[in-house]
Amino acid sequence: MSLATILSLNQYNIVYNVLSFVIATMLAGFIGFLLIRSSLPAKHRNALTLGTLVMAIADYHYFRIFNSFTAAYHIVGGKYVPTGIPFNEAYRYVDWLLTVPLLLAELVTVLELTPKESKVLISKLVVASSLMIALGYPGQISPVHSTARTLWAAASSVFFVYILYVLFVEIQKSLDKQPEGVRPLMFTLRALLLLSWGFYPIAYILPSFVGGATGIVVSQVGYSIADVVAKPLFTYFVYKVSKLKAEVEEKEEADLRSSLAA
Amino acid sequence: MSLATILSLNQYNIVYNVLSFVIATMLAGFIGFLLIRSSLPAKHRNALTLGTLVMAIADYHYFRIFNSFTAAYHIVGGKYVPTGIPFNEAYRYVDWLLTVPLLLAELVTVLELTPKESKVLISKLVVASSLMIALGYPGQISPVHSTARTLWAAASSVFFVYILYVLFVEIQKSLDKQPEGVRPLMFTLRALLLLSWGFYPIAYILPSFVGGATGIVVSQVGYSIADVVAKPLFTYFVYKVSKLKAEVEEKEEADLRSSLAA
Repeated sequence: MSLATILSLNQYNIVYNVLSFVIATMLAGFIGFLLIRSSLPAKHRNALTLGTLVMAIADYHYFRIFNSFTAAYHIVGGKYVPTGIPFNEAYRYVDWLLTVPLLLAELVTVLELTPKESKVLISKLVVASSLMIALGYPGQISPVHSTARTLWAAASSVFFVYILYVLFVEIQKSLDKQPEGVRPLMFTLRALLLLSWGFYPIAYILPSFVGGATGIVVSQVGYSIADVVAKPLFTYFVYKVSKLKAEVEEKEEADLRSSLAA
Repeated sequence: MSLATILSLNQYNIVYNVLSFVIATMLAGFIGFLLIRSSLPAKHRNALTLGTLVMAIADYHYFRIFNSFTAAYHIVGGKYVPTGIPFNEAYRYVDWLLTVPLLLAELVTVLELTPKESKVLISKLVVASSLMIALGYPGQISPVHSTARTLWAAASSVFFVYILYVLFVEIQKSLDKQPEGVRPLMFTLRALLLLSWGFYPIAYILPSFVGGATGIVVSQVGYSIADVVAKPLFTYFVYKVSKLKAEVEEKEEADLRSSLAA
């Protein structure tokens, strides 16, 4: 989708401020996860290491998206008119190509799987997510309402649905193996995952229906909300799972030690 | 409030230098809190973790505010004349949307509450503060002296007063549970909170009375002072509370150990 559409002051400001909000949020997430990561026992830090990388990559890309958006418009007679410099929609796809596999690996890390099971699952998810994103991009830059856009979107969706199906099943299986107190958090994590992933196809498809300037605003705001839920908010809950597991283990160890001493 | 008003050299320089002062202060706060945070025992670091994030978010936004202010004016015949590029007042609101909940969580962390009480209180405060900020923004960008500005301000103020009332009551209740030496610090913290929060409505309302170029200076300087008191200064006192609590606990533990040994 190109941005060759005039935006009103309000429309431009909404996108501008939402993009800046995400830059600040990813920055805070990066620093916050870096700090709280070291409060966890070494063996429970892996998920948060991945989450910290996701924040850094996303913050970089949101800086680029913000700069690309501001360069694509200038104010003429009280409205924002395209400058002719294209808005680079590919930043989001390059971001996802890196962050989606990392986020999936982050989730797999807090499932109670054997190293071998984890490896198989991560491989499947990395391949599927790369295909989902690579097939989605040609659709994103095809004209709204074109057959090409619909076909690429459909091909991408196959992998989207496959990933959600695999994760749903794997989280379900892992629930029985999780310590008692961790289960409600895993339910929250699954709900967050479905919620945030559900936003992406909406932000992808909706511009085809609303179109024009409103389509641009809906798409940029939709992707931004989805990224905030799928990245910092999701990672925060992954942190809570890791922390709870560390506490459960510490308690078990203390109980064992006191029963040995008695 | 738009900035379509000519500023004298002095007026421009005051705002310019105050904004730069805040950038430097937030940067120093960020580094300082990052360093002293690690001097606290792990269980007392949470409040300072939140404070460190607040500094980073605020510093980012003050950079943006500074750049937006300088882009909004150019010098013509010895005066600063608007360039036509709008000054983005929304940066402050996006900043508050992120930092006010974090600052409230920072305060709740040093009150002696059970995890459940903390969770309930934080939820209440996050919802109320988001509504306060979201309702304040439309008023901020409405014309000075308009009915719209007054109505939005009034709606926002309801939540402002509610938050201060809840905090006043909760700090009062928590005072009895605090260790002896911590109480005077909690009084200081409460005074700082009321003082800094009191500045915001003044910076919001005063431009309606003084108007024009003076209004712009008063508003920008007022918000800047409020942000310095409410963020780095407030966090510094939160640090002192955390430190004192850690010392009291250490002393109690040492006493217990020596009484067991005797």
